[in-house]
Amino acid sequence: MTGPDKWFFDKINDNLMQLHAISNVLYTGKTRFQSIEILQSPTFGKVLVLDGKIQSAEIDEFVYHEALVHPPMIAHPEPERVFIAGGGEGATLREVLRHPSVKKAIMVDIDADVIEVCREYLPDYHAGAFDDKRSRIYNTDARKWLAESKERFDVVIIDLTEPVEEGPAYLLYTKEFYTIVRSKLTANGLISVQSGSTSYVELTNIKAVARTLRSVFPIVRIYQADIPAFGGPWGFCIASMQTDPVEMSAREIDKRIKARGLNCLKYYDGITHTGMFTFPRHMRKALAGGGRLISDAKPLYLYQE
Amino acid sequence: MTGPDKWFFDKINDNLMQLHAISNVLYTGKTRFQSIEILQSPTFGKVLVLDGKIQSAEIDEFVYHEALVHPPMIAHPEPERVFIAGGGEGATLREVLRHPSVKKAIMVDIDADVIEVCREYLPDYHAGAFDDKRSRIYNTDARKWLAESKERFDVVIIDLTEPVEEGPAYLLYTKEFYTIVRSKLTANGLISVQSGSTSYVELTNIKAVARTLRSVFPIVRIYQADIPAFGGPWGFCIASMQTDPVEMSAREIDKRIKARGLNCLKYYDGITHTGMFTFPRHMRKALAGGGRLISDAKPLYLYQE
Amino acid sequence: MTGPDKWFFDKINDNLMQLHAISNVLYTGKTRFQSIEILQSPTFGKVLVLDGKIQSAEIDEFVYHEALVHPPMIAHPEPERVFIAGGGEGATLREVLRHPSVKKAIMVDIDADVIEVCREYLPDYHAGAFDDKRSRIYNTDARKWLAESKERFDVVIIDLTEPVEEGPAYLLYTKEFYTIVRSKLTANGLISVQSGSTSYVELTNIKAVARTLRSVFPIVRIYQADIPAFGGPWGFCIASMQTDPVEMSAREIDKRIKARGLNCLKYYDGITHTGMFTFPRHMRKALAGGGRLISDAKPLYLYQE
Amino acid sequence: MTGPDKWFFDKINDNLMQLHAISNVLYTGKTRFQSIEILQSPTFGKVLVLDGKIQSAEIDEFVYHEALVHPPMIAHPEPERVFIAGGGEGATLREVLRHPSVKKAIMVDIDADVIEVCREYLPDYHAGAFDDKRSRIYNTDARKWLAESKERFDVVIIDLTEPVEEGPAYLLYTKEFYTIVRSKLTANGLISVQSGSTSYVELTNIKAVARTLRSVFPIVRIYQADIPAFGGPWGFCIASMQTDPVEMSAREIDKRIKARGLNCLKYYDGITHTGMFTFPRHMRKALAGGGRLISDAKPLYLYQE
Repeated sequence: MTGPDKWFFDKINDNLMQLHAISNVLYTGKTRFQSIEILQSPTFGKVLVLDGKIQSAEIDEFVYHEALVHPPMIAHPEPERVFIAGGGEGATLREVLRHPSVKKAIMVDIDADVIEVCREYLPDYHAGAFDDKRSRIYNTDARKWLAESKERFDVVIIDLTEPVEEGPAYLLYTKEFYTIVRSKLTANGLISVQSGSTSYVELTNIKAVARTLRSVFPIVRIYQADIPAFGGPWGFCIASMQTDPVEMSAREIDKRIKARGLNCLKYYDGITHTGMFTFPRHMRKALAGGGRLISDAKPLYLYQE
Repeated sequence: MTGPDKWFFDKINDNLMQLHAISNVLYTGKTRFQSIEILQSPTFGKVLVLDGKIQSAEIDEFVYHEALVHPPMIAHPEPERVFIAGGGEGATLREVLRHPSVKKAIMVDIDADVIEVCREYLPDYHAGAFDDKRSRIYNTDARKWLAESKERFDVVIIDLTEPVEEGPAYLLYTKEFYTIVRSKLTANGLISVQSGSTSYVELTNIKAVARTLRSVFPIVRIYQADIPAFGGPWGFCIASMQTDPVEMSAREIDKRIKARGLNCLKYYDGITHTGMFTFPRHMRKALAGGGRLISDAKPLYLYQE
Repeated sequence: MTGPDKWFFDKINDNLMQLHAISNVLYTGKTRFQSIEILQSPTFGKVLVLDGKIQSAEIDEFVYHEALVHPPMIAHPEPERVFIAGGGEGATLREVLRHPSVKKAIMVDIDADVIEVCREYLPDYHAGAFDDKRSRIYNTDARKWLAESKERFDVVIIDLTEPVEEGPAYLLYTKEFYTIVRSKLTANGLISVQSGSTSYVELTNIKAVARTLRSVFPIVRIYQADIPAFGGPWGFCIASMQTDPVEMSAREIDKRIKARGLNCLKYYDGITHTGMFTFPRHMRKALAGGGRLISDAKPLYLYQE
Repeated sequence: MTGPDKWFFDKINDNLMQLHAISNVLYTGKTRFQSIEILQSPTFGKVLVLDGKIQSAEIDEFVYHEALVHPPMIAHPEPERVFIAGGGEGATLREVLRHPSVKKAIMVDIDADVIEVCREYLPDYHAGAFDDKRSRIYNTDARKWLAESKERFDVVIIDLTEPVEEGPAYLLYTKEFYTIVRSKLTANGLISVQSGSTSYVELTNIKAVARTLRSVFPIVRIYQADIPAFGGPWGFCIASMQTDPVEMSAREIDKRIKARGLNCLKYYDGITHTGMFTFPRHMRKALAGGGRLISDAKPLYLYQE
């Protein structure tokens, strides 16, 4: 027989699936919170799958993690304290720690097993970040931890699985949660949130996240990056009380990157930043309004209106 | 049973497939040159499929056709004569004819049956363009027609299926063909070419097309648009002897759009133009060099090195 | 591209799917009770699909319908009155009417739209049976009709879709329904029931149907036929108060077939009959006991324990 | 997400695929001759796949191996010397060795790596058979070995992968090979051959194998067993110069089984035997004639006419 015979079905929505050939299953198991798989793909390398959804792939995880981390980190003049909700692979932490001003990076991921499996099977993802002396890892509910914390943060990064019913993350996408975040940010602090597909045919999630952030923060921007392993363009929201990342010029961004010694970045730079926030006309219109408010009482589940 | 039960398999590459739920098959047949299907998709509306590859879908064909047509048409100060190779749906012609300066639009598509089927099943695609008195439709080999023509064109648009072995289009992607095109362009004429995926994991086609154009034209630019029906970002090349579309400001583009009365456009405007040519860092690097020269003696077949 | 691009997904169970290439969709719609599709398959010809499950296919419908109908019809010495529950395609009726002793064949299928669509798109299935003057067609609930009927029948044939939650058929698989059937059978009457897969890995349905029939009838036998369109061997139950079809010799069956002028049969004869009731050792063991009692209070849904 | 996300695609023919959910990949590799995988299926247990085709599955391998081995072994009054071509899993050997009269069992499988992997990953398949002192295992071409051998055998069992172009097995399905087998059989010896699908829609292989055997042996019978992991009923041919297994009564078979102490068999007994050779009417007709002669000069490739 010709061609691959083992396929991973990534259900993008009810009417669309992306099928990835897989050459091997490196790990498969269930934690207290979710199912976890590490698959080997001929195209994407090692792929982390939680509850049946691809979280990141070796070949393009740098796009996802740089896109999530650097816009708020660069927009802040000197981020010292960073809070990460989720981020089990350790790659978000890895990107945060590249910024030399960072003194403390707290990562709260409820699922210790995911971290353990990623540590063992995806060592290039964390690249030692878990062992950096500036890192603190807690395995508890990120919302609870943040609510009870007395600290304030310059940057908060929400790197969670998508909100699945009964899943571990759905209460970290609500207005109530973002209100807690706001109260824990420093005056010029920023939050970035992975927010789901920005495919023109699948905007429910991103619009709801943006709408909900807008109910809490005066400045909210949507941006995107193309991440092939996710089957299309992927959206992020960035929000703050004071700082608008769209007002930063490519030149200014490149200056900060250089000043912080971040020439190692593969995805992000000034031109990239400009492109990420530049949507074509129909997308600007589609993203302009609407979206529903996500609240504890009426949470959002993946791609359901 | 829950969920759709009929699926169209779109083989993106050997290791990746996109599956579209289909609710109906509106037409299926074989022409002298290729197989043709019109499928009904709950997400994408009517979808045209030639030789098993999606050509365009009702919901986002405007993205594809505006992206293919307007960059060269706007970059030219006053396009009067336009040549389209392929373009069976009639939507490329439709976009060309929006420009009031156009006096003659010649479309050469080898497959009269495709045109016939599209005329009947996809009337919104051509929207009357076939019957516009400025249109001339020829069903013959576009290369042969162009080589033998005595006319010169301001804009040439290559709207072909991808180069499949034995397929109708593979000799319209070669250096020899682009050389013919150059000889038929006016001094400040431009050519745009649909050039395949710009997914980071599937750049073989676009790089080869760009490389080949560079062997004929001094100015060649790659740009892209996200087209969900194609399963990711889609690439185009634009080339010319004199005009670099990257040098046009968003403001200038919007000025020309307004002057030509093109406010009806849904996808393209000045901001869109800027975004289309702005690739992130890793893509700029990946697209910068390489790609192989496509020639009649060594043609390119879809996604084969 | 090589190979078919449109596939029908037949979910056999949670862990097994059969995919049929389809070349066309001849009909698709929704009735008051179920979804209905007529698909064109290169291998199986026209295929009728209700609620996502294949009901019958042109190439092998004769196997299914002969297997369902002739064992009870032949086991009865002179069937005059026959009741069919379901049977929308008309092919069960067609087989029943082949027996010259039949004076009246009543078919009660709740879904008039299914009958209408089959009449139009699958004329070879009914082959005029709907217009036979011995036929009576009612579109109402078969259980209600039978319960209220004053007639008695020599043969009752249950030709229903599988019991899907909220589907039209699940109350026609219960002990209460079979008790009604018993009260409407003549003394030497028989009932046959299509009963689902007899694949060794998927015996839940057939065992439950057999178990439930055994709670109502003293003689119950399971038999099977291989029906490729269904993705494997398919099971039927036959039950009665007096007649055991296993005790009939191949010779006796062939004699009756000849006497009734049924040489037209393609599937069923004496040897076929013997083979249908002959299960290999592991299957005899697996089918011997167990299965749960289906009742109105605790109905069975497809392949759920 | 609900439902399995990893699937094995078993291409049954161009228009039919069976998809098995897989929970893990236990082994994947390439030998000198073929690709080899051991998959974990929730329904079928461990599954051996060679060159993309399922060879056997934990849950129903006993059906396949008993069906292949015991008909010729029981039809022979006292088999002492047995030759197996292929049989890498060791389960055919296991079944052969159950017969107490066996003094020597020679297994020739070209692919030592398959044997090694099966030994390690599928220990219940061989169940110690490789270490039985009556066993001889050779890793060379079975045809060459047999042609050069001076020994004669009571039973020859052909347990090969299907004939794939360039695959290791296609020259072991030809008239020339069966002629060699005949010359190495004792006077009342028998040969059994796994012969592919007996699905009504896919009879090319079985008919060609039967036709070819008939050109060499006077007695040839087709029989079948339902093997869910293979996606339907599976065919075998048995041939000999003198012995017709169809003439054996169920009673006689059960007597021999008892005399040989084979009560451990799960699939095979007298009733099973009778059922295996009993095809329904349409299948008897379809299998009766036709099929093409397979020769070295014109070999058969899987399901190609």
